[in-house]
Amino acid sequence: MRTENIEKLLLDVKENKVSVNEALSTLKQLPYQDLGFAKIDHHRELRQGYPEVIYCSGKTVEQVVDIVEVMFHKGSNILGTRATEEMYLAVKEKFPMAEYNKMARIITLLQKEIQVSDSYIVVATGGTSDIPIAEEAAMTAEILGNKVERVYDVGVAGIHRLFSKLDIIREAKVVIAVAGMEGALASVVGGLVDKPVIAVPTSIGYGANFGGLAALLSMLNSCSSGTAVVNIDNGFGAGYMASMINKL
Amino acid sequence: MRTENIEKLLLDVKENKVSVNEALSTLKQLPYQDLGFAKIDHHRELRQGYPEVIYCSGKTVEQVVDIVEVMFHKGSNILGTRATEEMYLAVKEKFPMAEYNKMARIITLLQKEIQVSDSYIVVATGGTSDIPIAEEAAMTAEILGNKVERVYDVGVAGIHRLFSKLDIIREAKVVIAVAGMEGALASVVGGLVDKPVIAVPTSIGYGANFGGLAALLSMLNSCSSGTAVVNIDNGFGAGYMASMINKL
Amino acid sequence: MRTENIEKLLLDVKENKVSVNEALSTLKQLPYQDLGFAKIDHHRELRQGYPEVIYCSGKTVEQVVDIVEVMFHKGSNILGTRATEEMYLAVKEKFPMAEYNKMARIITLLQKEIQVSDSYIVVATGGTSDIPIAEEAAMTAEILGNKVERVYDVGVAGIHRLFSKLDIIREAKVVIAVAGMEGALASVVGGLVDKPVIAVPTSIGYGANFGGLAALLSMLNSCSSGTAVVNIDNGFGAGYMASMINKL
Amino acid sequence: MRTENIEKLLLDVKENKVSVNEALSTLKQLPYQDLGFAKIDHHRELRQGYPEVIYCSGKTVEQVVDIVEVMFHKGSNILGTRATEEMYLAVKEKFPMAEYNKMARIITLLQKEIQVSDSYIVVATGGTSDIPIAEEAAMTAEILGNKVERVYDVGVAGIHRLFSKLDIIREAKVVIAVAGMEGALASVVGGLVDKPVIAVPTSIGYGANFGGLAALLSMLNSCSSGTAVVNIDNGFGAGYMASMINKL
Amino acid sequence: MRTENIEKLLLDVKENKVSVNEALSTLKQLPYQDLGFAKIDHHRELRQGYPEVIYCSGKTVEQVVDIVEVMFHKGSNILGTRATEEMYLAVKEKFPMAEYNKMARIITLLQKEIQVSDSYIVVATGGTSDIPIAEEAAMTAEILGNKVERVYDVGVAGIHRLFSKLDIIREAKVVIAVAGMEGALASVVGGLVDKPVIAVPTSIGYGANFGGLAALLSMLNSCSSGTAVVNIDNGFGAGYMASMINKL
Amino acid sequence: MRTENIEKLLLDVKENKVSVNEALSTLKQLPYQDLGFAKIDHHRELRQGYPEVIYCSGKTVEQVVDIVEVMFHKGSNILGTRATEEMYLAVKEKFPMAEYNKMARIITLLQKEIQVSDSYIVVATGGTSDIPIAEEAAMTAEILGNKVERVYDVGVAGIHRLFSKLDIIREAKVVIAVAGMEGALASVVGGLVDKPVIAVPTSIGYGANFGGLAALLSMLNSCSSGTAVVNIDNGFGAGYMASMINKL
Amino acid sequence: MRTENIEKLLLDVKENKVSVNEALSTLKQLPYQDLGFAKIDHHRELRQGYPEVIYCSGKTVEQVVDIVEVMFHKGSNILGTRATEEMYLAVKEKFPMAEYNKMARIITLLQKEIQVSDSYIVVATGGTSDIPIAEEAAMTAEILGNKVERVYDVGVAGIHRLFSKLDIIREAKVVIAVAGMEGALASVVGGLVDKPVIAVPTSIGYGANFGGLAALLSMLNSCSSGTAVVNIDNGFGAGYMASMINKL
Amino acid sequence: MRTENIEKLLLDVKENKVSVNEALSTLKQLPYQDLGFAKIDHHRELRQGYPEVIYCSGKTVEQVVDIVEVMFHKGSNILGTRATEEMYLAVKEKFPMAEYNKMARIITLLQKEIQVSDSYIVVATGGTSDIPIAEEAAMTAEILGNKVERVYDVGVAGIHRLFSKLDIIREAKVVIAVAGMEGALASVVGGLVDKPVIAVPTSIGYGANFGGLAALLSMLNSCSSGTAVVNIDNGFGAGYMASMINKL
Repeated sequence: MRTENIEKLLLDVKENKVSVNEALSTLKQLPYQDLGFAKIDHHRELRQGYPEVIYCSGKTVEQVVDIVEVMFHKGSNILGTRATEEMYLAVKEKFPMAEYNKMARIITLLQKEIQVSDSYIVVATGGTSDIPIAEEAAMTAEILGNKVERVYDVGVAGIHRLFSKLDIIREAKVVIAVAGMEGALASVVGGLVDKPVIAVPTSIGYGANFGGLAALLSMLNSCSSGTAVVNIDNGFGAGYMASMINKL
Repeated sequence: MRTENIEKLLLDVKENKVSVNEALSTLKQLPYQDLGFAKIDHHRELRQGYPEVIYCSGKTVEQVVDIVEVMFHKGSNILGTRATEEMYLAVKEKFPMAEYNKMARIITLLQKEIQVSDSYIVVATGGTSDIPIAEEAAMTAEILGNKVERVYDVGVAGIHRLFSKLDIIREAKVVIAVAGMEGALASVVGGLVDKPVIAVPTSIGYGANFGGLAALLSMLNSCSSGTAVVNIDNGFGAGYMASMINKL
Repeated sequence: MRTENIEKLLLDVKENKVSVNEALSTLKQLPYQDLGFAKIDHHRELRQGYPEVIYCSGKTVEQVVDIVEVMFHKGSNILGTRATEEMYLAVKEKFPMAEYNKMARIITLLQKEIQVSDSYIVVATGGTSDIPIAEEAAMTAEILGNKVERVYDVGVAGIHRLFSKLDIIREAKVVIAVAGMEGALASVVGGLVDKPVIAVPTSIGYGANFGGLAALLSMLNSCSSGTAVVNIDNGFGAGYMASMINKL
Repeated sequence: MRTENIEKLLLDVKENKVSVNEALSTLKQLPYQDLGFAKIDHHRELRQGYPEVIYCSGKTVEQVVDIVEVMFHKGSNILGTRATEEMYLAVKEKFPMAEYNKMARIITLLQKEIQVSDSYIVVATGGTSDIPIAEEAAMTAEILGNKVERVYDVGVAGIHRLFSKLDIIREAKVVIAVAGMEGALASVVGGLVDKPVIAVPTSIGYGANFGGLAALLSMLNSCSSGTAVVNIDNGFGAGYMASMINKL
Repeated sequence: MRTENIEKLLLDVKENKVSVNEALSTLKQLPYQDLGFAKIDHHRELRQGYPEVIYCSGKTVEQVVDIVEVMFHKGSNILGTRATEEMYLAVKEKFPMAEYNKMARIITLLQKEIQVSDSYIVVATGGTSDIPIAEEAAMTAEILGNKVERVYDVGVAGIHRLFSKLDIIREAKVVIAVAGMEGALASVVGGLVDKPVIAVPTSIGYGANFGGLAALLSMLNSCSSGTAVVNIDNGFGAGYMASMINKL
Repeated sequence: MRTENIEKLLLDVKENKVSVNEALSTLKQLPYQDLGFAKIDHHRELRQGYPEVIYCSGKTVEQVVDIVEVMFHKGSNILGTRATEEMYLAVKEKFPMAEYNKMARIITLLQKEIQVSDSYIVVATGGTSDIPIAEEAAMTAEILGNKVERVYDVGVAGIHRLFSKLDIIREAKVVIAVAGMEGALASVVGGLVDKPVIAVPTSIGYGANFGGLAALLSMLNSCSSGTAVVNIDNGFGAGYMASMINKL
Repeated sequence: MRTENIEKLLLDVKENKVSVNEALSTLKQLPYQDLGFAKIDHHRELRQGYPEVIYCSGKTVEQVVDIVEVMFHKGSNILGTRATEEMYLAVKEKFPMAEYNKMARIITLLQKEIQVSDSYIVVATGGTSDIPIAEEAAMTAEILGNKVERVYDVGVAGIHRLFSKLDIIREAKVVIAVAGMEGALASVVGGLVDKPVIAVPTSIGYGANFGGLAALLSMLNSCSSGTAVVNIDNGFGAGYMASMINKL
Repeated sequence: MRTENIEKLLLDVKENKVSVNEALSTLKQLPYQDLGFAKIDHHRELRQGYPEVIYCSGKTVEQVVDIVEVMFHKGSNILGTRATEEMYLAVKEKFPMAEYNKMARIITLLQKEIQVSDSYIVVATGGTSDIPIAEEAAMTAEILGNKVERVYDVGVAGIHRLFSKLDIIREAKVVIAVAGMEGALASVVGGLVDKPVIAVPTSIGYGANFGGLAALLSMLNSCSSGTAVVNIDNGFGAGYMASMINKL
C-alpha cells in the first residue's frame, strides 16, 4: 500500500467519511483471496492482458481447478506452468477454451487479447533437448505480451551455427540463453552481444552433470559481463524476468 | 531409572523384601518389549492420552501390524507416521477404528480421549505444496494434546498474506514454519514474532533446490534469532518438538 | 505494530488529537535508528534487563564502537558476539566497564541488573574442544536472564561420564547439546531426557568432518524425537532459542 | 563485426579501393591489443564516458600497471576491480589521479566526465557486513553512468526497516539485493516490487553457510518472480547487469 | 604366487622336469577362468567350505547363471549377493538346491558342510529398517563359517535396549554395527566394548540423510577408537571383513 | 573456414566471378542444415567412411528419425548413441538396414565400407557391469575406423587377471580404461603402460559411489602420468578421443 | 560395569558389608576423573603397558599439561596425538622424559616397558607425502605393544615397487594402507593379501582431491573384500584398530 | 617385465648360465632405488633426454635434495614440479646449474640436450591468471622434447581474440586448453579444431567457482567431442599427456 493511500484513508477518517472500524478493516484487508489451501494473490496492478500465474507442480488436480476457477471469474488471462496432462484435462472440462502445450507443460486460458511489444526477446538453446525449457520461457514471455524470436540448437560444439544467427540475436532487447551440459552458450552469447543475458541452466546431460549443477556453476562463473542466472530448468522465471526488462 | 528407584531397590534388598536375584533381574529388566525385529520402547512415562509412535517407513506391512497390536494391548493411543495406504488397510482389518490421513500419511488408532492444551501452536506454510508436511506436523501435535492453528500459503512472494495473519501467529506459544524453495518464511516469521520458531525445510522445488537442501541451508543460516531446524520434510519431528515446548 | 495501536491512532485522528500528518509520520516511523551503515533495531519490547545484541563479525572496529554507543545511550545491557580482542579494547576505551570473555569471543556491557530464572538450562559438550561454542551459548543465556548448568566433556566415547550427570540434565527445562566430530551426543541426550534439546554442531574435527558438516547432518537425522538444530558453531543462536523456551 | 561492414569491405575490394591482401588483413585484424600475457579487448562500441574494466585478481602488480597504461592511452575511463592496495599504489605512481576505494577494492582512473542517468538503481543489503560487495556494485554502476541509491542493513530479521524504505525501492528501475546468511532479502524484495531484481549472494556468514552457498541456493530458489542471480560476492557483475537494464 | 612356487618351478626347469615353454605357460597361467564377459577368480586358497562370491548387481540373469555354473562344477559353495528374485529363479531351475533369502537378497548354493567358528560375531542394528543390510552381513559371515549373534533394533533413541544386550555384545570377538539416520550406534557401541567395530552406514532415512551420507560421515568421525567403516549399505563387505578378523 | 577460402572468395569478387551479394551470402552460409529443432552440423571435413553422430538422449523419436533421414541422404554412415529400442524400431521402419546394439544403446546405419586402422585401441573394464559403457566406446571407435581389442573384467581386486593381458595392452596405441566403484583400474594401467590412457568412470556401484563420483574423483587424482578423464559413463567421448589419437 | 559386579554389590548390601548409601555411591561413581573442562576416562581395563591417549588438537596448552599430569600420576604410559611443538615443550618442562615425534605430531611419555607382539602390522604408504600420517599410525600401534613393519612409497603408479614387498606384506596379521590422491593402494593391497586391510585416506593431493575426499570415496568403494576405512588423515584410529585386531 | 625376458631367464637357468638363486633374485629385483622414505622409479625405458620427474609438494626440502641427488647420478635430466623457492635454493647449492621458473614453480636440472619434436602442442589460456598453470604444462612438454606454442588470454568473453589465433591452433597436433571460471574455452576450442584437446580446469575464480569445481564440471560435460580432462590445476599432467600424444 502506498503512502498516498494511507494519507487519503486518514483524511477520510478525520472527515467522518469512513468510520474507524471501516478504516481498520481496510488497513487489514489485503488484496488476496483465501481458498484455505491457497491464498490467491491479486497484489500486482493488473494491467490489460496481464495473466495470473499458477505453479501447478505439487498441487492436486482439484486444487489447480479451484484456483483456475477463482482467477477465471476475475476475468484474467491464466498461465499454468509445470502442468500435467491430467490437470489440463480437468481444467478443460470446465473451461473448454483452455489450451495445453505438452512440451512446455503449460496450460493457457485466455480471455483478453494480448498486446505484443515492438522490441523482442531472443530465446536461444544449446541443443535440441533444451527446447522444452526454452518453450516454457518463450510461451511465458509471449503470454506476458512480448514478441519472441526462437534460435534453437546453436551450442558451442558447432559455433558457426550461433554466428549465422548473430544478427537476430544482437537486435534483441534481452536474450535468454538456455543450455545444459557445460552451459557455455551463456558465456559465448554474453561475450558477443551488448544486451542483458538471462542464463537458464538445464538438467540435460548425464554423469558429472549432476542434474544441471555443471551448467549452473558454469553460468554463475561466466567470464562475460551482463549475465545473470535463474534456477535450473526455470524457463518460467527467465521468461518473466526477460519480460520485465523488455517492457521497461 | 532414577536415583531414588535404585535407592529404594537397595533398601528392599537389605530388608529382605527383595531377593538378590530379583533385584538383579529388575536392574536388567528395562521397559521395552522385544519382537525380535523390533524392541518396542515403553520408556517414557506414559501419561493419559499420550500416544505411542511408529515410524512406518522401511518396515514391512506385517511388522507394522505386529507393532500396532502390541501397543494396542497396552491401551495406548497409537500414531503411525509415513504410513502407506496398504499399511493402513492391513491395520484397519484388525482394528476397524483405525483412521488414515492420506495427505499426511498418518495412521491413528485412538483408545483414550486426548486432553487439549489451552495455548496453541501455529503451523504455517510458504505454499500449497508444503501442506502434506505441515499436516504431518499438525496432526502429530494434535494427537499429542495440543491445540493447533493452521496458516497455510503465506510465503514471502506475497508477504501481505503473511501480515494479515500476524495476530494469530503472534499469540501462539510456538510456531512451526514449513517451507520449501528458498525457505525464507522461517526468517521472516522469526523476525516478526517473539516466540520459538521450529523451521521445517521441505523438498518442494526443483533444480538447485537439491531435494530440500536450499531450504535447509537457508533456515540454518537464518539471520533471525529464536529459530531451530529439523530435518527436511520432518513434520513429525517439528510437531513433537513444538508439543514439548508448548507443554512446558 | 499491533492492531490496537492502529485503532488508537485512528481514533486520535478522528478526535483531532493527532493531525493527519502526525499520524502518517507515526505510521511510517518504525522503531529503529539509522546509522547509515546499520539500522539498529529497537523493535522487540525491551523488558528490564533484556540486552541488545551485536553480531560483530564482518563489521569494522569503528562500526562496532558506534553501534555500542547508540545502544548504550538507550540504557540497554549490550551483548557483542564473535568479537575480536581488538574490538573489545576499542569499546573498553569508551566504556571502561565493558568486559570480554576471550574463549566465547563475547563483549558484555551491563547497565542493569539481570533477573535470573528459577528453572535452568543445561549446556552439555561432547569434548573439551567444544567448550568455546558452549560458552557462547551459556553466556548468551545468562545475560538473557537464565540460570545455566554446564556439563562439559560427556561425549559418547565414554558414555558413563554422561550417565553420571543424568540427574542434573533431566531436571533442566531445556538442554543445549554441543558436539563436533560425529555429533552423537544430541541423539543420546535426546533419547534420555523428556525435554526439548537444542543441538549445536561444531566444526571440531578433521578430515571427513568437512567443517562441521558431519555433526550437522548427524544431528538433523537424529533418531531421537524432541531435537532441533541450529547452525554450525552457532552458540549464540542456541542460547537465544533456549532462553525463549526456558522463559515460556 | 556487422554484416554491413563485411558488405562494405567486399564492395571496396570489387572497386579496387582495397587490395585483396588488405581486405584479408582487415578481416583477420580484430579490435584487441596483444600484451602477450593479456589481450586487451576494445570490442564493444566505446561510448563517451564508458569505462574499460580490469579484473585485477590473479594478476601481478606489473600486469595491472601495464594494462592500465595501454587503456589510459586510448583515453578511456578505467575501472579496476578486486584490486589490492599495493596495485593501487603502483598505478598511482604513474597516474596520480587514480583513486582507490578500499572497502570496494576498486581503482578508478577517470579522464572523461560521466553522464548520469535519470532513472536510478537501488543497491540494498541485508546487513552491515554485506556493504563491501554492495559498494563494488554501486561504484561499478556509477562509473558506468547510473544514478544509484543505497539502502543498507534492511535484512528480514527486522523487516520494518525494509518497509520504511519501500517507496525509494519501488521507484527504482532495477534493484540489486545483496545478502549473505540465508539471503532472504532477494525473495522479500522480489515479492514487494514490480522491477527486475539482481540478487547477489555474499559469503558473509559461517558454518553451514559454506562460503555463500546457502545464500546462493536460497536466491536461485526464490519463490518471487523477476529475480536473477549472479555469482557469490560478484558485486561488479550485478552493477554491470543493472546498468545494462537501467540504460535500455 | 608365492616365492617358493617360483623357486620350485625354476628348480624343475633346471632339472628338466618341466620344459621352458611349460614353465613360461605356467608363469603366465593365472588361476582364473575366462568367460569373456567375466574372469572368474580362483585366486585365494580355497579352504574346505569357503564359498565363491558373485556380486550379482549389474549383471544379466544369463551372466549370473553362467558364473554359477562354472563355480558349481569346481565343487564350491556359492554366495550370490544383491541378487534379484528373477536371478534366483533362473539359478534354481538348473540347481534346485539353491536357496534365496529375499530380505538379504542373497542366493546360496551349498555343496559342502560349513565349519562354524567357536568365537562369534555380533551384528547389531539401530532400527528395524536396517535389518536387510544386517542380514546380508550376517548371512555372509555365516556362510564363511562364523557363528553370528543378531542384536536388532537397539538404536540410541532408547539406549536402555542396547544396555540390556551389552553382555552378549561384549563377549563377541568383533562387532558389526549397522545403522542409518545419524548412525550414532557405532560410536556408542565403540565406546562400550573393547573389540573391533565394523560400522555399516545404511541409506535408511530421508531428507538431509542424502542416501546414507549422514550416517557415513557420522561413523567416519566417530570419537570412539577401534571403529572402521565400510561403504553405505555394504553388508557383504562388513560380513567378510568381520569373518577375516574372527578367524585370525 | 580457412584463410585460403576467404582469400579465394575475395579474388573471385575482385575478378567479378562472384557478385558481392553472392560472396556475402557465402560468407554467411555455414555448413549446417536447419531443421528448426536441430541444426545438423556438416562442419568437419567428411572423409570417406567417417560417420555422422546423433546423441539421441533427450530427443523425441520423431526428431531422431528426421535427423537420420537428413544425414542418410548425404550418404553418410550414421551413429546414434544413447538410443532407445523404440527409437531404433522407428528408424528401422524407414531404413531397414539400420542395426541396434542393445547393450551399448547404439544405432548404426552404414552406407559405406569402413577403413580399419592398423594400430589398435584397447578397451579394458574393471568388471562385468562396466561392459555396456565399454561397448559404447568400442563401437564408437570401430565405426570411426579403428581396430579395437576388448579386455574385460580385469579389475584390481584380482590384479593377476590384468597382468595376464599386459602384452596385448602394452602393444595398443591408446588405452581406454572403463571402471566404476573406486576406478583404480585407470591408475594401475597408467602405471604399467607407456601410452595415453583415456579413463571412463562409470556409475556402477552403490552407496558412497554417488552415481560415479567416486570413480571420477579417483581417476582425476590418478598418481599415474599420461591419464585424462571423460565424463561419467561417457563411452562415446572416450571412443571418439581415442580414435583421434589413434589416427594421428 | 559387569553384571557380576552388580550382583556382588547387592550381596554385600544384603550381608551388611556395604551400607545402602555406600552402594548407591559406588553405583554412581564411575571410573573417570573430572577436571571441569575434561573428564579423564579410566574406563577400559588398563593392562600393563597400555597407554592413555590424549587428542591434543583443539585443547589449550594448559589443558594438555593438566591432563598429562593427572594421567602421569596414575602411572600410565601416555600418548598425545596431534600435538604441537609448543604443547610438547610445555609438557617436557614438567616431565623431562617426554619425547616428541615432529613428523607424526606425537608426544610420548613412557613410565613402563611396552610388551611387543610376535605377529606384526604392516603400515604401507602410496607416496612419500603420506608418511606423517603413516607414522602416526605406526607409532600408535607400537606404543600399544605391536611390532610394526613400514613399507613406504609403494603406490600404484609404479606397481613393481609394491610387488617387491609382497612377501613382507603377506606375512602381516593386519595391513594399514595409507594413501592420498586416488587412494588405489588400498584396493590393490586388498586384492593381493588375505588379511584385514585398514585403509587411511590422506588429504595429500590438490584440485579435485577436495581435502582427501577423492581417496576416501575411492577406499569406501574398494572392489576388494576385506577392507574398512577410517577418517581422512586418521593415523591414530588406524593404528588403534589394527592393534585391536593384531592382539585378538 | 616382458615375456621374452622371462623366457630368456628360464633358458639361462636350464642351461646353467644362471643359478636358481640368481634367477629368483632377478625376478624379484625390480628397477627402482629405495631411499627409505621414497622408492625412485627407473621403470620406464629412459630414452635420450627423457627426464625424471619429482612431485615436490608434500616433501621436505631434504627429501627433494636427496631424490635429486640420486637421479642426477644416473645422468638424467630432472624436472621438479610444485617446487618452492626454498627447495630450489637447496638444490642449487649442490647443483649450481639447476634453474627455477617461479611462476610455474618448476625446478629443472638438465644434463643432456633435449631433442625437440617437429609437430607442436598449443597451450591456450582463457585469462591472464591461468598462465602459471599453463606454464607448468608448457615447460613440462618442452623438457619432454616437444615444441610448444603459447596462446594466452583468449577466453570466450571476447571470442574474436581466439578466432585471430585459430590458424596456429588448428595446425597443432594436440591442444591444451587451460581455463578457470566457467571453463568454456575447452568446449569452444574443441568445437573448432579436429585435434585432441586436453582440458585443464584451474582454480581461478571466486564464489561458486568452489576451487575450480565449476570449470572442472564444465569441461567434463563439454558438448564438444575429442576432449578429455585432467585434475584441477594439473598443468604437469596435461603437459605429460600431450607429450605422449604428440610423440605417437
